[in-house]
Amino acid sequence: MAARCVSLWTRLPICAQRSQVLRPIHRLLSSPGTVAADTRREEQSLGIAETGSEDRTPKKRFSEVQKERREQAQRTVLILCPNKISEKKFLKYLSQHGPINNHFFFESFGLYAVVEFCQKESVASLQSVTRLSVGTEAVIPFRSRFFNLKLKNPPSQTSEQSCIPCSNQSSPSSKKLFELLCNAESVDDQLNTLLKEFQLTEENTKLRYLTCSLIEDIAAAYFPYCEIRPFGSSVNGFGKLGCDLDMLLDLDEIGKSSAHKTSGNFLMEFQVKNVASERIATQKILSVIGECLDHFGPGCVGVQKILNARCPLVRFSHQASGFQCDLTANNRIALKSSELLYIYSALDSRVRALVFSIRCWARAHSLTSSIPGAWITNFSLTMMVIFFLQRRSPPVLPTLDYLRTLADAEDKCIIEGHNCTFICDLNRIKPSENTETLELLLKEFFEYFGNFAFNKNSINIRQGREQNKPESSPLHIQNPFETSLNISKNVSQSQLQKFVDLARESAWILHQEDKDHPSPSSNQPWGLAALLLPSVANSMSHAKKKKKKPANERVKNLLESIKSSSTENSTNTSGKRTDSTQA
Amino acid sequence: MAARCVSLWTRLPICAQRSQVLRPIHRLLSSPGTVAADTRREEQSLGIAETGSEDRTPKKRFSEVQKERREQAQRTVLILCPNKISEKKFLKYLSQHGPINNHFFFESFGLYAVVEFCQKESVASLQSVTRLSVGTEAVIPFRSRFFNLKLKNPPSQTSEQSCIPCSNQSSPSSKKLFELLCNAESVDDQLNTLLKEFQLTEENTKLRYLTCSLIEDIAAAYFPYCEIRPFGSSVNGFGKLGCDLDMLLDLDEIGKSSAHKTSGNFLMEFQVKNVASERIATQKILSVIGECLDHFGPGCVGVQKILNARCPLVRFSHQASGFQCDLTANNRIALKSSELLYIYSALDSRVRALVFSIRCWARAHSLTSSIPGAWITNFSLTMMVIFFLQRRSPPVLPTLDYLRTLADAEDKCIIEGHNCTFICDLNRIKPSENTETLELLLKEFFEYFGNFAFNKNSINIRQGREQNKPESSPLHIQNPFETSLNISKNVSQSQLQKFVDLARESAWILHQEDKDHPSPSSNQPWGLAALLLPSVANSMSHAKKKKKKPANERVKNLLESIKSSSTENSTNTSGKRTDSTQA
Repeated sequence: MAARCVSLWTRLPICAQRSQVLRPIHRLLSSPGTVAADTRREEQSLGIAETGSEDRTPKKRFSEVQKERREQAQRTVLILCPNKISEKKFLKYLSQHGPINNHFFFESFGLYAVVEFCQKESVASLQSVTRLSVGTEAVIPFRSRFFNLKLKNPPSQTSEQSCIPCSNQSSPSSKKLFELLCNAESVDDQLNTLLKEFQLTEENTKLRYLTCSLIEDIAAAYFPYCEIRPFGSSVNGFGKLGCDLDMLLDLDEIGKSSAHKTSGNFLMEFQVKNVASERIATQKILSVIGECLDHFGPGCVGVQKILNARCPLVRFSHQASGFQCDLTANNRIALKSSELLYIYSALDSRVRALVFSIRCWARAHSLTSSIPGAWITNFSLTMMVIFFLQRRSPPVLPTLDYLRTLADAEDKCIIEGHNCTFICDLNRIKPSENTETLELLLKEFFEYFGNFAFNKNSINIRQGREQNKPESSPLHIQNPFETSLNISKNVSQSQLQKFVDLARESAWILHQEDKDHPSPSSNQPWGLAALLLPSVANSMSHAKKKKKKPANERVKNLLESIKSSSTENSTNTSGKRTDSTQA
Repeated sequence: MAARCVSLWTRLPICAQRSQVLRPIHRLLSSPGTVAADTRREEQSLGIAETGSEDRTPKKRFSEVQKERREQAQRTVLILCPNKISEKKFLKYLSQHGPINNHFFFESFGLYAVVEFCQKESVASLQSVTRLSVGTEAVIPFRSRFFNLKLKNPPSQTSEQSCIPCSNQSSPSSKKLFELLCNAESVDDQLNTLLKEFQLTEENTKLRYLTCSLIEDIAAAYFPYCEIRPFGSSVNGFGKLGCDLDMLLDLDEIGKSSAHKTSGNFLMEFQVKNVASERIATQKILSVIGECLDHFGPGCVGVQKILNARCPLVRFSHQASGFQCDLTANNRIALKSSELLYIYSALDSRVRALVFSIRCWARAHSLTSSIPGAWITNFSLTMMVIFFLQRRSPPVLPTLDYLRTLADAEDKCIIEGHNCTFICDLNRIKPSENTETLELLLKEFFEYFGNFAFNKNSINIRQGREQNKPESSPLHIQNPFETSLNISKNVSQSQLQKFVDLARESAWILHQEDKDHPSPSSNQPWGLAALLLPSVANSMSHAKKKKKKPANERVKNLLESIKSSSTENSTNTSGKRTDSTQA
């Protein structure tokens, strides 16, 4: 899904000097939060595949990760803290309500703490001694798990205060990323560096599940058996820091929850409001939840009810966490798509590095945009990478049909008539025998799509082979579950051509570098860094290779690029994303 | 408060024959519900003062009644039943979830059962085996205490089915009332008969508390410590069958609930939405609850949010119970006014009989109306009756100032700067030594107000004596708590004059009857029945006594009368009642 808040994906400055950055790369692996020591182990156990390691410890199923994270989030609280606070005293104060499993601080509009108790009961204990604020203003007396810690006696400026280590919740600046890339040892190292800088941290993932859990509290007030689950980039392995938080209100559990015991001739049902369709039911439920978020939800601002979209949603900003949230309902195919991507992202450590780099490359050249239009989407790019990796010999990734053949009875899943069955246990999928380097795969990716017969062939990860296009859209990528749909139906011929041109040029740059053996010690940007430069389409010495674009096309692209950059940091201005296939 | 649904309070037909009705009056005391045997005892214990009895068993405080009724309602469920059902099997089926304390059936849009379990847990047990309906339509999966019982095998027409005794939830027809009155033994008997026919039954009171409790469930989803309490005529002793159900959302308990433990230098508060004023907070909360009622609330229809009124409210119809509901918030003076009227209604058995008859008389002559306007209100009439009873010698009722002198420390109550203190323990108020009959009091009431110096004097129950009017409104009745307000500011000179004329005429009729000794065995309407006849203002032989009204005035009254009759049965058409003094 497109992100709106990360300006880093725009063109990088050319001025970066490799020599300015000397930090070792392994530094990037440890989170600056207070729980850094635990982070790596937890990343493993909770499904964040670590780059580079070919660790073969059992990987958790998507559903297991979601369940554990949700349970974890339910015993977690969010606390707005005074700027000057002693961490030790803070923890001691909270420990009165029970042992703390984990905590970290982060900065947003103020200093926030995320505190995970060992037991859920501790949250209720904390709430029981929490008061409603008594200020000059009136308040909505809503009691959530979002607190405001105050000091009775604010410390004087001179008193000593320990400095709180803050977990970083945003991606590096363009300048810093560029420096890191130029300082890398190899192209492989560059791709892994980019991944490490942009991927969701353990803390950020926790914050996402916590935000869902806080919203779930609001929905659960009326629908006790509902679940609010993150889907899309927050959980599919391909999310980057700052990406939107897509949430799904799952009411399906409600129907299942009551084991209906029949007795004699009687049948007891809840008296409920009947509506003409599931869609109307969804709209009404989202409408009320939207009202609640708007009027009661602490920190929920800019609530928009977009109920007439194909997939009705409520969009809002969660101020404390800084997440732009989209809440939809009963959108189960989207959740299944997330699971599929999660499996692909976790199967081989090269997948995420390649996808992150391709997405970053596309963003740098304005091939993708946060506003809807004729652009290619991140989801489409991901499908192209997966498809490309299925086409290698031996394949890096299996086809979806193969994953389906591995499925057992409990994996069976039919949603709205679509067969969404595939194996859910990662550990039962044989690792790839392909040993190609990331550098080679990157180069080959550009080669492959620089020469793909888009005019007649369709991309589909289900079969993992080129097929005749069933319709005339310039780019045809089959929706993996709703197979009659083309996920890139929106892409125009000119945008596709731009993609092809840039792919060819990038392949050429990498090829040239191979021949010229550019030295990492030179001051020239190289490898991935070179590919992200704005000059790639114009300034390199390969103008002869491409058909010269007409001037008006270039002006149009420039305008698009400016437009997309200017909207990237604004919230709530972009149009509706209605694609239920978002994963 | 004005009622909209009771057409009985319009002019009675003249055709009634006393001889047609032979039912003994004591029949009216027993409710036709299945719990009739318990009803009288419960009426005593839960604050329904029984007419005529000078029972001196301890009477419960208003707050005790409210608390007990609320607790009772919380373990009660509402069930829509098939039309043909065996009561025995029904009770056996429900008893699986725990012992049943009480139950009754009533007819509305279908056959409904109100079932009160002995324990609250039984409700949860029933809910746990209740399913969401599976029909052709989509549903809002909201799990309330309102159920729909179905038969797996509907009985054939020929199969035997026990006939379910239904509790009556509406007042008698005009014809029937007239017959009952004409068949009474005396005027006192007539007044008591009218009271018994129109007063809220035990079942209707239960249904009112249950309806509040069902709405409380919806509000409590977000405000766990809130209470929704009935106020006004539903609880003040003066409500008649079919009257509106006024509810008050009490959020005050929320602030009190958390015993804030401070520890060290920290102070934990809930992160909440701040708004500019209490009024805005109330509006927002009522707005969301209105949305919930509209979209989720089973049986809640015609939801109107009237948030810009002086006292913001949500108006809706609760279909099953048939109540027109008005939900306000934090309107504590109104609740205190209800308590005061409750005390006056319970202090002496004559009070309610007199108030009911005067209200019925006023309604019959279109002195009151369900639509807002220059008419006198039921609340004003009640205050006039109370004031009149304070003026008797010896007084039937004590003054409010006297009730205040009896108050002890825990009775102290200041709301928004107004002293609302009075004694809450009924049993500590000495009974009246006045032994006048209802007949005499009725006649004297008409005499008193037929000759009251409305032009210069004000009515106030606080001091129980006539005072100079502080302003020039035709009718001045001091608000008992907000003493600078006139509760009858809306009454026009012509409406007041109409009241005075009718009072004089009614006094004259009763006086004439005294002299003529009309026989109850004659076919002529007599006593209270005669007073309710439309002809009273025109057809009696005392036209000389009153100043002839101009023709246009009579036409206007006729139009008003038609207008008010035609709106009486319609819901949601009347304008906003914003008077916070409604009691």
